[in-house]
Amino acid sequence: MRFSRAFIPTKKESPADAEIPSHKLLVRAGFIRKVASGLYDILPLGARVIRKIEQVIRQEMERAGAQEVILPIMHPAELWQESGRWDVYGKEMIKFKDRHERDYALGPTAEEMITDLVRKEVKSYKELPLNLYQIGRKFRDEIRPRFGLMRSREFIMKDAYSFHASDEDAEREYWNMFETYSRIFKRLGLEFKAVEADTGEIGGSFSHEFMVIADTGESKLVYCPECGYAASTEKAQQVRPEVPPNREGEFEAVEEVHTPGIRRIEEVSRFLSVPQKRILKLLVYVIDGRPVVLALRGDREVEEAKLKKAFNAKEVRLATDKEIEEFTGQPKGYLSPVGLPLPVYADYSVIPMVNFVAGAGRADYHLKNVNWGRDFSVAEFVDVTEVRGGEPCPKCGAPLVEKRGIEVGHIFKLGTKYSEAMGATFVDEQGNEKPMVMGCYGIGVTRVMAAAVEQGHDENGIIWPVEIAPFEVIVIPVNVKKEEIVEAAERVYSELMEAGFDVLLDDRNARPGFKFKDADLIGIPYQVIVGKKASEGVVELKIRRSGERLELPVDGVVGKLRELIGRG
Amino acid sequence: MRFSRAFIPTKKESPADAEIPSHKLLVRAGFIRKVASGLYDILPLGARVIRKIEQVIRQEMERAGAQEVILPIMHPAELWQESGRWDVYGKEMIKFKDRHERDYALGPTAEEMITDLVRKEVKSYKELPLNLYQIGRKFRDEIRPRFGLMRSREFIMKDAYSFHASDEDAEREYWNMFETYSRIFKRLGLEFKAVEADTGEIGGSFSHEFMVIADTGESKLVYCPECGYAASTEKAQQVRPEVPPNREGEFEAVEEVHTPGIRRIEEVSRFLSVPQKRILKLLVYVIDGRPVVLALRGDREVEEAKLKKAFNAKEVRLATDKEIEEFTGQPKGYLSPVGLPLPVYADYSVIPMVNFVAGAGRADYHLKNVNWGRDFSVAEFVDVTEVRGGEPCPKCGAPLVEKRGIEVGHIFKLGTKYSEAMGATFVDEQGNEKPMVMGCYGIGVTRVMAAAVEQGHDENGIIWPVEIAPFEVIVIPVNVKKEEIVEAAERVYSELMEAGFDVLLDDRNARPGFKFKDADLIGIPYQVIVGKKASEGVVELKIRRSGERLELPVDGVVGKLRELIGRG
Repeated sequence: MRFSRAFIPTKKESPADAEIPSHKLLVRAGFIRKVASGLYDILPLGARVIRKIEQVIRQEMERAGAQEVILPIMHPAELWQESGRWDVYGKEMIKFKDRHERDYALGPTAEEMITDLVRKEVKSYKELPLNLYQIGRKFRDEIRPRFGLMRSREFIMKDAYSFHASDEDAEREYWNMFETYSRIFKRLGLEFKAVEADTGEIGGSFSHEFMVIADTGESKLVYCPECGYAASTEKAQQVRPEVPPNREGEFEAVEEVHTPGIRRIEEVSRFLSVPQKRILKLLVYVIDGRPVVLALRGDREVEEAKLKKAFNAKEVRLATDKEIEEFTGQPKGYLSPVGLPLPVYADYSVIPMVNFVAGAGRADYHLKNVNWGRDFSVAEFVDVTEVRGGEPCPKCGAPLVEKRGIEVGHIFKLGTKYSEAMGATFVDEQGNEKPMVMGCYGIGVTRVMAAAVEQGHDENGIIWPVEIAPFEVIVIPVNVKKEEIVEAAERVYSELMEAGFDVLLDDRNARPGFKFKDADLIGIPYQVIVGKKASEGVVELKIRRSGERLELPVDGVVGKLRELIGRG
Repeated sequence: MRFSRAFIPTKKESPADAEIPSHKLLVRAGFIRKVASGLYDILPLGARVIRKIEQVIRQEMERAGAQEVILPIMHPAELWQESGRWDVYGKEMIKFKDRHERDYALGPTAEEMITDLVRKEVKSYKELPLNLYQIGRKFRDEIRPRFGLMRSREFIMKDAYSFHASDEDAEREYWNMFETYSRIFKRLGLEFKAVEADTGEIGGSFSHEFMVIADTGESKLVYCPECGYAASTEKAQQVRPEVPPNREGEFEAVEEVHTPGIRRIEEVSRFLSVPQKRILKLLVYVIDGRPVVLALRGDREVEEAKLKKAFNAKEVRLATDKEIEEFTGQPKGYLSPVGLPLPVYADYSVIPMVNFVAGAGRADYHLKNVNWGRDFSVAEFVDVTEVRGGEPCPKCGAPLVEKRGIEVGHIFKLGTKYSEAMGATFVDEQGNEKPMVMGCYGIGVTRVMAAAVEQGHDENGIIWPVEIAPFEVIVIPVNVKKEEIVEAAERVYSELMEAGFDVLLDDRNARPGFKFKDADLIGIPYQVIVGKKASEGVVELKIRRSGERLELPVDGVVGKLRELIGRG
């Protein structure tokens, strides 16, 4: 393609509402344009990236035995009412009426649609398993869309749903999809981790998120470089510490100290010159309507997903200041585990603590040398705080590494939630009618594009993995008025096209600096710069990612790129 | 792919609401399933066909210099208000509100969206021309969806829009798209005609419809086998006949005849033993509110699109019985051109008529030997009736051929309608600001799938063109319990796959007749039947379209199919 005829509207300025690199760069480099809040036009460069991502996904899904379908975007309300999600989905689901006043939704996900199809067509175990996928538009009416393609209201998703005659077969397919997703993200040229994820209300242990590693990611994850364990911090388990032997031998006498106006852990730590690790943090939660006192080591944070799981709860929230005083009879900021009218639940991190600082239960005082077991009893030790880098791997004990990531894929064993609600049953070998066991598997296609930019960029622009770059190579004649330069550029351009590469020729009549800036901004992995030495048959190859530059003979370009890209 | 693992739910019965072959067969053969009125799931076989159609379209559009974009399906109301179409589009457009009560439409077409994008990004003639296309979902809330995919509420369309600095350049692109569409439909393996189409309210002469020829088609068209002229009957022109020389010499005296209760042309023809061609048909229309009397040859029909054009009218309708008597003072069924209080407009077909029959202007009487010019005057001769097969070609005079067709593509020179309404202007070489000249170009992707079935089917099922068949070849072992049959079938299957063909292996444990029926129904172009002679290394190749059967050695299958499909 010739740049002069391509629709690539690059810009110097980032949009005012752009907060993260992918949003800024995809707009500046001419990949997307905003239509309205959370709605984007994907321009030709962006469409090329999307089609390449889709192609890899399609090939790998087919290879894994999944079959493509195309379901309507208009979902009849009746199906969502059957599953019970019509009313609970909330305002994120866009609802509308047709000309006959019938209710519909714009599909945010398609469990109901696919379950309806399969229950009507599949009757016997002989027709199972089945894995059906689609690639298309999804809608979520975010209250505050932001981050460009990362959280838009209309987006492209690959969603797959599998149906099985047994739990074991659903698990087999789960791992088949795990492998398939790993292959997909590898082929897309992305650094990623598959992490164990929280399964939310459905429970069970089969849920993995696929995270593209990027400093700007919304999610935190930890992984073990030794054994491969990886989990989101919502899910990562703490190793339960041993109770130190002979801890009672170390106990010292409790001492009350005056701490006027000192409430927060950091303040207490500074005021008493005690590390945060040796201070007990007490929090009051309301868990499914019941007050619960939670003790944790001062330097740790509660992870609500883990808290929900530990208490098998639907809803958790921090108590208000008023509730705290009502429940405990103590002032906020000086809560003491000693003499509380409520049982104390303690995080694993509290187990090794000895002679720690805690509130005194009255304003402006703390206690030193408090010890659980002696001064107060613990109802139960629970795993409710976030695991951090450096802490031991729950599988092998090696120190964990902490990273930030962007969720781009999610695989999930659904079980029989939808098949039971909607009567998707089959007759097994013994003639018994049973609900099908389901799994679901999603990839955010537009999100992958944005995540690739979060992972690959520098101050000059985007750095695409070659696998999904809009073009693999750009040929840049530095001066389109010099005949020998134009001739050499045209020759390289047509040779590269013949060899099957995706090539852009920057044939614009513009200054070289201007062209180089655009090439860097767009992020094409390989730049062939045709300059003065063209008359000697020599051109320059610049590698976008490393900045490395090589001089090459004109007829060596195709060979060198075949070697670098590993194709052709 | 193995049939036993594929989701191909074939059926014996057609759905009750299916009226046309494509609807019946696509359901029976397991390509689509109805979700709700006008909404269909496209199953794996159907998705394979759609993807192949899309691939051909994408390749040819890119080759023609068009660039793919992906625009939102949610269209902000403001854009449609700017073009003036928000209120006029009517109930076919699905409208809804988001959570912030802002208005949106589900895009039925994207002129507004694309014009908004281009007006914001393109400022100079240097950035033109531009042709942007997308392939995706479109929505039309049909009052009575029917004919399966042929008139559904949600469908897949390729829509392209081009922008130009001059009328000439828009015309150049128009013909570029004309050629591109011709290549696309040829590559899709369809028999089609590009016909001149009515341009409706916009006017001008640049509109072609691409019609897939099928007896069940909704539209009629005529074409000239000699010179290539082709037009929809809405648009096809009549040759204006010469006034016969010396016609006055043939005039005979007017004679009134008693025709009690005889009103309709067929009745008059029978009663008086006069061919319909020699009877004058008089019709009263209300054209933009004004009464108009139209005379035509008795065997012809008015084509309203041509009538509108001839009178440059927005709205035409037949007058009511009451209006007829009011306007003419004569009773319906006996209208006479003689002594009418309104001028008479006559279709070209009236020009050669001499001594014809017409109403007498009073009940129960007709006139014989009426002649225009002598007995009444014609205000103007106009071309307002439908051209039929056998009539002369307006370009070369050879007899036209009449066919029925299904509109699958439409190209259109839009002019400046949208660019003027929405301020999509550019600065030309002389520094003047001008509106861009636009064109638009659509292909109904899901409709192409249905049209291919209307064109290609017989009593046993679908006959796909090999270019868009879900699979090119099906290998059918007649008995999966005989080792030598299974072995030969597996060998042919893997050799065909290695050679790059799309192959389905019917590995189901079922009777041969059952498998043959499914293969015919699904319509796979080539069937390799592996039967008893497998032990001698011989298989049978059946060609679906012709029914022809060939015996082949097992190792001759790949070669023969390469020859037949012309690939590999």
